[in-house]
Order: sequence, then structure tokens, then C-alpha cells
Amino acid sequence: MNLPKGFLGSAVAAGLRKKPGLDVALLVAPGGASAAAVFTRNRFQAAPVLLSRASLRKSRGRVKAVVVNAGCANAVTGAEGLAAARRVQERAADLVGCPREEVFVASTGVIGVVLPDAKVTTFLPDAFARLSSGGIEAVSRAILTTDAAPKVARATFRHGGKTCRVLGVAKGAGMIHPNMATMLAFVTTDAPASPALLQAALKEAVDGSFNAISVDGDTSTNDTVLLLASGASGGRELRSIDGAGAFRAALAKVCDELAWRIVRDGEGARRVMEITIEGAATEREAKLAAHAVATSQLVKTALYGGDANWGRILAAIGRSGARVSTRRVSLRIGRLSVVEDGAPTGYREAAAAKAFARERVPLVADLGVGKARARLLAADLGHEYVTENADYRS
Amino acid sequence: MNLPKGFLGSAVAAGLRKKPGLDVALLVAPGGASAAAVFTRNRFQAAPVLLSRASLRKSRGRVKAVVVNAGCANAVTGAEGLAAARRVQERAADLVGCPREEVFVASTGVIGVVLPDAKVTTFLPDAFARLSSGGIEAVSRAILTTDAAPKVARATFRHGGKTCRVLGVAKGAGMIHPNMATMLAFVTTDAPASPALLQAALKEAVDGSFNAISVDGDTSTNDTVLLLASGASGGRELRSIDGAGAFRAALAKVCDELAWRIVRDGEGARRVMEITIEGAATEREAKLAAHAVATSQLVKTALYGGDANWGRILAAIGRSGARVSTRRVSLRIGRLSVVEDGAPTGYREAAAAKAFARERVPLVADLGVGKARARLLAADLGHEYVTENADYRS
Repeated sequence: MNLPKGFLGSAVAAGLRKKPGLDVALLVAPGGASAAAVFTRNRFQAAPVLLSRASLRKSRGRVKAVVVNAGCANAVTGAEGLAAARRVQERAADLVGCPREEVFVASTGVIGVVLPDAKVTTFLPDAFARLSSGGIEAVSRAILTTDAAPKVARATFRHGGKTCRVLGVAKGAGMIHPNMATMLAFVTTDAPASPALLQAALKEAVDGSFNAISVDGDTSTNDTVLLLASGASGGRELRSIDGAGAFRAALAKVCDELAWRIVRDGEGARRVMEITIEGAATEREAKLAAHAVATSQLVKTALYGGDANWGRILAAIGRSGARVSTRRVSLRIGRLSVVEDGAPTGYREAAAAKAFARERVPLVADLGVGKARARLLAADLGHEYVTENADYRS
Repeated sequence: MNLPKGFLGSAVAAGLRKKPGLDVALLVAPGGASAAAVFTRNRFQAAPVLLSRASLRKSRGRVKAVVVNAGCANAVTGAEGLAAARRVQERAADLVGCPREEVFVASTGVIGVVLPDAKVTTFLPDAFARLSSGGIEAVSRAILTTDAAPKVARATFRHGGKTCRVLGVAKGAGMIHPNMATMLAFVTTDAPASPALLQAALKEAVDGSFNAISVDGDTSTNDTVLLLASGASGGRELRSIDGAGAFRAALAKVCDELAWRIVRDGEGARRVMEITIEGAATEREAKLAAHAVATSQLVKTALYGGDANWGRILAAIGRSGARVSTRRVSLRIGRLSVVEDGAPTGYREAAAAKAFARERVPLVADLGVGKARARLLAADLGHEYVTENADYRS
């Protein structure tokens, strides 16, 4: 597995994790790259989020290096945390030979601990020396926290008579929820594109993917999706969203694939429900209803148990704030209709149990009051999640 | 244990539960009672909720009998469910000798199954024959579902030179959340009071108790709190909220005690957090922040594990939508200050772990932007909850 042209990657073990392993990743675009990013909307934004956002603005969407660490989120760490993030940025800028603001930093791990930046900077020269096109495999492992497996997704598209590539890596697991999560994703392409086009395309792709998934209702202080375009494939620069259809499709494919893997790989997840709300009065209400189902502990534990207890699904919709016609509401589990016109159908319990036992369980509720829709992927809630999270720090 | 004067109670096993046991409770006020009730705000209101609300309006706040069943919620059951609830109401009215609308019905159990009303009505004469002042003990057990223990609370107050009593029973466990839950509570007093005064006093008491607790974020289709006043203690009727201070205090005490027991007894709960949000811009935002902490799976599993992972608490507040000053925010666990002015204090981890290991964990977050406050009791989330709910129906 190689990075798209114009990118090199590597990772090192800097001792930030309790269990030794790769924990600092470096991505470099030797010729520089156009960049766009989407960050968490949590009001507690981690130091690296604050710093990278400001740097990206200052560099006008140019990035030459990306430094990511696991093991420490460097969030809620005040001025001290910001200074630590800045020292990492400065050291990387020295090594790569670029202005400080062209270094993008990201962190994930425990909140409330200042990044031990000396560990990172000590090992950065080593990471720099190991850079290679095949280093993406190490990068994909170094950024993980409680993830069960690395997450990589790829797509290609044609542009100016050439085949361009899009390759993304992500980490997910806990704190996954719309408007992102302890989720980091780095997507690279060798196509040439302006920062403005990248930002528009990224927002579009994220809305349909990373912002439509939920593992546990919690969004984090560190969520970041970064999109980099090296332009190494050559050709005319993509500048307008209308002329970038093939690129947008490839980007959406990569983001959708990474988002699905994040939910499927949610902490302890056994299965995933794909919640579709139809017939809502407004899109906002459709989202409220989908969100209520996605975060209902009772629905999520029933999903874990493979128990098609659909009363909990309707009860969650009923408390969501979305208007719903109790006489017209309907609910399908997979292709099985369980509620029609507000009353149970004569479905067979065995058929419902079977539909609820699949790896991916589609739930379609029609609220019967309008035409708005929303869709959300959400993980179940089981013993593995509790075990993982009851004592994450020890 | 006896009911306040003017009330009799009993319970029978009508075969509504999978495991045999008391499952139909009867409360009768032979001389009638003034009544007030608060119901779930879930849009899917169960048949007994719809029927009892309408009956109470028709009787202008008079109730002579209450029939409660466990084992079947009779919710999302359409016209058929409503007819079943009405047949129970009619049979009880015949037995007690009162207009149909003076019989209050309530149900709890699985959603989506029509109440097998013939089982209830067959055993109602038996329940009627067993009525006694000491029957409240059987009532308190018959209404339980997944509760670990019966919940009874008592208080007394002076009125017109006499000692009046307030006695309440409740069932809780899952689906507990502000604006109520699969929660039924029946509170009786022998004081004389008008229905209007009862309604005002009940709303006040519920806002500070049953509407300020959360077990799992889900509210149910059946939640009901009923307050009955027999007037058997004699004396002048309580009519104005201003003149009923002693009664309101006693009622608040009973509701607070029942609410605490419901959370403490939440499915599998090991400990309870008492979340206080201070310094919020508005009361709405204070509630949003408290709600986000109360429903955060990450906070709740950390509480279960006794892991003082306060970063999760701030992350939940940060995504709640409440404005917060990241420079002024502070957080205390019990009396231990862990965050001040947006950064960790130099607290000892052992002290935090100790504070987090108590049965009741007070969390006080000051958002640093205003003066509004909110308070919420919430249960932890552990293996027992998952086990209980992954396969509730089987």
C-alpha cells in the first residue's frame, strides 16, 4: 500500500502509550499541498485543534507536514498545552524546512494531560528519516487508540486524462457522534485542487459520512478531518465544485467507507443499525428522531441482545421532540413491517429476531407528518463497551 | 404500614407476568378523593394515559379507584388497546360503585402488546375483597417491573390542628429521564384539598424530583404521577398554594425520596451522580449541560468503574450546546477541585478516585458565563444494565 504521489509517511514509538507501540505519525508533502479541514464543534477544543485551525488560516490552506500523536489528547490543558503543541509544530517545521504554520498537528488520547512534547520532538528526526511512500501503513496504526483495527480506504478518479488517487486513514472507536468525535481522519489525493474547492468538497463529504454516525453520543475535543491535495498527478487545478464531480464522488466513497468502519469498529460493537427517518415535518425533526433512536440506551442494548424490542424505538422517537402521527406512524426492520398505522402488524417474532440479528440492521420509521428525511449509522451497546470504558485510563 | 385515612389497597396475581407474582394493584378511596396527575410528555402515550387523562378531566379531579397493572404497558396498541383499558375501568367502576370516569387506570411493562384485560377483570373482584389499609405493601410490590425493591416514602404535616399524612409508592428502573419515565407514582394524603391546589402542588414537587432524575435517557409512554387527597383527616380544605406550605413541604419530601430511590435502584446502578451546573448563561443551557453529562455513556461508564475521568465530563458539557468559558470553567468532584480556570488543578489522583467511588457522587461544574443553575440525579452504566436490557422480553 502506497500513498498517492507527492506524499510520504512514517511512524515511531515515542513512549506516549501505556503499552509500547507506534504513537507518533508523520505525513509529509515534500512539494507542499493544498489543504482543508473540518474540526470538532465541541466548545472545549483541544490545543492542537486551536493551533492547527489558526495555522491553516495563516498559511491560506497550505500544509507541508502533519504530526499526529496518540496517547494524549492535550485537551483542557490551557496555555501550557498550547505551548507544548507549538513546540511540536516548530520542531517539525525545522526538520521539514517550512514555515511553522504549514505544519498541521493533531492529538488523541486522555483529556486533561499536557502533551509531553519532548517525547514527540525527540523522536521526530527518527520519523523524518523513515519517511516513505509505503509508510502509510505505519501511520494508520500509530493513530489508533481503542480501535480494533486500522482503517484505510481508497478510491480513484479520472482527471485531465489521468488516473488520480484518494487515500484516507482514520481512527475512531469511542466518543463518535454527529459533528464528529474522538475521530481523526487524514485524506490525501495527488490531484491538483485549490484550498477553497477542497473545503467545499470536504464539507459535503463529511456531512454524509463522519457527521452521520454515532457510537456513543459523545463528541470529543479533538475531532479533525484533514484533506490534502499534492497536485503531483499534474494537470489543471480543480477549482469549482461543479467541475469536480469525479473527485467529489471518490472523496465521498473514501469518507463513507471510513465512517462505516468507525461505527462497525465502535468500542465493543457487535452490530450497527442504519436508522432512516422518513415522513418527518422538517429535516431538523427527522434528525432529532434519528438521534434519539441512535442514543437510546434501551434501543442500543436491545440491538446488542438481538431483541427486536421495537417499542423502545417508538418510545425514543416519541420523546425526541419530533412531531409524529400516532395513527399513521410505521416502522420496518429490514424488509419486515412491524408497525403500520400506529399499531403492530401481525408479523412473526422469529422473522423480527432474524432481522435484528444481522451485522447491519436497517430501521426505517415513517413519522407520517411530512416529507423530510434523515439517516444515521449507530453502534449497539454491550458488555465490551462497558468493560472498555469503565476503566479506560488504568 | 398503613395507608393514610380514607384509603384502602390490595393486589392480586392475575397472570400478566412471565414469572408469577402480584401484578394488579387496586387503590380505593371509599369516600372519594380529590385528584391531580402529571403524565409523560412522550408523543406515544399509552392507552391508560390517554384514558385516565380524559377521565380526570371529565370527573373534574375526582377519583374513587385506581387500577394499576404490571407486565403490559398497553402502549402503541391503537383503538384495541384503548378498548381494553376502558373495559378494566368499567369493571372497576361496577365493583366500587362510581361513575366510570372516577376510575384511574395505569399500566407498565412491554410496549406494543394489547392489555389482556380479561385477566385483569377476572381478578378484580378478588382484589376488591382483599382491600385493607395495610394493603399498600402489596400495592408497592405489584407495580414493580425490573425494580430491585419496592419504593415507599412517607411524611407528615400539621394542618388545622391535626397531623396529616402523605404516603407515596413508586416504580422506576429503566426508561427514567426528565419529564418522566417508565415511572409510576401514586401519592396519597388524608388532608382535604381541592383538585386545583393538588395540581399546582404536584407540578411543583415533580419538577424538583421526578423530572430531575435520569437512569438511561429514555422516557416512556406510560409515565404517570397521581396525587390523591381523601380529606379524611377533616378540617378546612386546602385551596391556595400560599396557604399550603406544610403540605407542599411534605409532598416534596415524599417525591424527593421516591425519585432518589428510583435512580439509586436504576437498572444495575452501582452509584449515582448528583450533577449541579452553575454559572450557565440561562436555565435552559444549564439543563442542557446537566442533561449531556447525565446521558453521556462515557461519563456513566467511568462512574461505574469509579474512574474519575473528568475530561469526559467537560467534553459532554462542551458538546451540549450550552455556552461555557473555556478559561473560567471549573469542576469539583465532591469537595475536591479538579479543574479551575479551565486547567487541571494539582489534585491527587487518589483523592479523585476516592470521591468517585462513593454511592452518591456530587459533581459541580461552573460554566463561568452567567448565573443560571440546574441539578440532575443520574445513574451509572454497567454490566448489570446491559444484561438486564439486552434481552428484557425473553
